[in-house]
Amino acid sequence: MDIKQKFGNNLKRLRLEKGLSQEKLALIAEIDRTYIPSIEKGERNVSIVIAEKLAIALNVPITELFKELK
Amino acid sequence: MDIKQKFGNNLKRLRLEKGLSQEKLALIAEIDRTYIPSIEKGERNVSIVIAEKLAIALNVPITELFKELK
Repeated sequence: MDIKQKFGNNLKRLRLEKGLSQEKLALIAEIDRTYIPSIEKGERNVSIVIAEKLAIALNVPITELFKELK
Repeated sequence: MDIKQKFGNNLKRLRLEKGLSQEKLALIAEIDRTYIPSIEKGERNVSIVIAEKLAIALNVPITELFKELK
Protein backbone atom coordinates (compact mmCIF):
# COMPACT_ATOMS: atom_id res chain seq x y z
CA MET A 1 0.00 0.00 0.00
CA ASP A 2 1.43 3.37 -0.91
CA ILE A 3 2.21 6.05 1.65
CA LYS A 4 -0.65 8.31 0.57
CA GLN A 5 -3.15 5.48 1.06
CA LYS A 6 -1.59 4.51 4.38
CA PHE A 7 -1.75 8.09 5.61
CA GLY A 8 -5.36 8.42 4.46
CA ASN A 9 -6.40 5.20 6.20
CA ASN A 10 -4.72 6.25 9.44
CA LEU A 11 -6.34 9.68 9.25
CA LYS A 12 -9.80 8.20 8.76
CA ARG A 13 -9.35 5.64 11.53
CA LEU A 14 -8.10 8.20 14.04
CA ARG A 15 -10.76 10.73 13.06
CA LEU A 16 -13.52 8.17 13.61
CA GLU A 17 -11.97 7.06 16.92
CA LYS A 18 -12.21 10.69 18.05
CA GLY A 19 -15.82 10.89 16.84
CA LEU A 20 -15.09 13.80 14.49
CA SER A 21 -16.75 14.52 11.15
CA GLN A 22 -14.56 15.46 8.21
CA GLU A 23 -15.95 19.01 8.43
CA LYS A 24 -15.20 19.31 12.14
CA LEU A 25 -11.64 18.03 11.69
CA ALA A 26 -11.04 20.51 8.86
CA LEU A 27 -12.33 23.31 11.07
CA ILE A 28 -10.09 22.38 14.02
CA ALA A 29 -7.02 21.82 11.82
CA GLU A 30 -7.74 25.03 9.89
CA ILE A 31 -7.45 23.35 6.53
CA ASP A 32 -9.85 23.48 3.61
CA ARG A 33 -12.96 21.36 4.18
CA THR A 34 -12.70 19.71 0.76
CA TYR A 35 -9.16 18.51 1.46
CA ILE A 36 -9.98 15.85 4.08
CA PRO A 37 -12.05 13.51 1.85
CA SER A 38 -9.33 13.36 -0.80
CA ILE A 39 -6.62 12.77 1.82
CA GLU A 40 -8.65 9.90 3.28
CA LYS A 41 -9.05 8.39 -0.20
CA GLY A 42 -5.24 8.34 -0.51
CA GLU A 43 -5.26 10.87 -3.32
CA ARG A 44 -3.07 13.53 -1.72
CA ASN A 45 0.65 13.87 -1.33
CA VAL A 46 0.27 15.70 1.99
CA SER A 47 3.06 17.95 3.27
CA ILE A 48 4.57 17.52 6.72
CA VAL A 49 3.14 20.88 7.81
CA ILE A 50 -0.39 19.69 6.99
CA ALA A 51 0.33 16.31 8.61
CA GLU A 52 1.31 18.13 11.80
CA LYS A 53 -1.84 20.27 11.77
CA LEU A 54 -3.95 17.12 11.44
CA ALA A 55 -2.07 15.36 14.24
CA ILE A 56 -2.52 18.35 16.57
CA ALA A 57 -6.23 18.55 15.69
CA LEU A 58 -6.59 14.83 16.47
CA ASN A 59 -4.47 15.17 19.60
CA VAL A 60 -2.14 12.33 18.59
CA PRO A 61 1.61 12.19 17.96
CA ILE A 62 2.32 12.78 14.27
CA THR A 63 3.90 9.32 14.07
CA GLU A 64 0.39 7.83 14.52
CA LEU A 65 -0.46 9.06 11.02
CA PHE A 66 2.39 7.01 9.56
CA LYS A 67 1.83 3.79 11.45
CA GLU A 68 1.93 0.53 9.63
CA LEU A 69 -1.15 -1.41 10.66
CA LYS A 70 -0.93 -5.18 10.76
CA MET B 1 10.74 23.53 17.16
CA ASP B 2 8.71 23.43 13.97
CA ILE B 3 8.03 20.23 12.09
CA LYS B 4 10.31 21.15 9.18
CA GLN B 5 13.22 21.69 11.56
CA LYS B 6 12.44 18.50 13.46
CA PHE B 7 12.29 16.51 10.24
CA GLY B 8 15.56 18.06 9.04
CA ASN B 9 17.35 17.29 12.31
CA ASN B 10 16.14 13.70 12.27
CA LEU B 11 17.19 13.30 8.65
CA LYS B 12 20.68 14.61 9.33
CA ARG B 13 21.12 12.49 12.47
CA LEU B 14 19.98 9.29 10.74
CA ARG B 15 22.05 10.02 7.63
CA LEU B 16 25.19 10.49 9.71
CA GLU B 17 24.43 7.35 11.74
CA LYS B 18 24.36 5.45 8.44
CA GLY B 19 27.61 7.09 7.35
CA LEU B 20 26.08 8.57 4.20
CA SER B 21 26.98 11.84 2.53
CA GLN B 22 24.19 14.15 1.40
CA GLU B 23 25.07 13.30 -2.21
CA LYS B 24 24.96 9.55 -1.59
CA LEU B 25 21.61 9.77 0.18
CA ALA B 26 20.15 11.83 -2.68
CA LEU B 27 21.40 9.24 -5.15
CA ILE B 28 19.90 6.29 -3.24
CA ALA B 29 16.60 8.10 -2.61
CA GLU B 30 16.48 9.31 -6.22
CA ILE B 31 15.84 12.89 -5.27
CA ASP B 32 17.62 16.01 -6.43
CA ARG B 33 21.05 16.40 -4.83
CA THR B 34 20.42 20.05 -3.91
CA TYR B 35 17.28 19.13 -1.98
CA ILE B 36 18.94 17.36 0.98
CA PRO B 37 20.89 20.35 2.41
CA SER B 38 17.77 22.54 2.48
CA ILE B 39 15.69 19.77 4.08
CA GLU B 40 18.34 19.32 6.78
CA LYS B 41 18.32 23.06 7.44
CA GLY B 42 14.57 22.84 8.11
CA GLU B 43 13.71 24.96 5.09
CA ARG B 44 11.49 22.48 3.25
CA ASN B 45 7.89 21.49 3.68
CA VAL B 46 8.60 17.93 2.53
CA SER B 47 5.80 15.78 1.12
CA ILE B 48 5.00 12.34 2.53
CA VAL B 49 6.12 10.72 -0.73
CA ILE B 50 9.58 12.29 -0.39
CA ALA B 51 9.64 11.41 3.33
CA GLU B 52 9.00 7.77 2.42
CA LYS B 53 11.77 7.76 -0.22
CA LEU B 54 14.21 9.11 2.37
CA ALA B 55 13.13 6.56 4.97
CA ILE B 56 13.57 3.70 2.50
CA ALA B 57 16.98 5.03 1.46
CA LEU B 58 18.00 5.20 5.14
CA ASN B 59 16.47 1.80 5.84
CA VAL B 60 14.42 3.10 8.77
CA PRO B 61 10.66 3.20 9.45
CA ILE B 62 9.23 6.51 8.24
CA THR B 63 8.16 7.28 11.82
CA GLU B 64 11.86 7.70 12.72
CA LEU B 65 11.89 10.90 10.66
CA PHE B 66 9.13 12.38 12.83
CA LYS B 67 10.47 11.40 16.23
CA GLU B 68 10.51 13.90 19.00
CA LEU B 69 13.97 13.80 20.53
CA LYS B 70 14.35 14.55 24.19
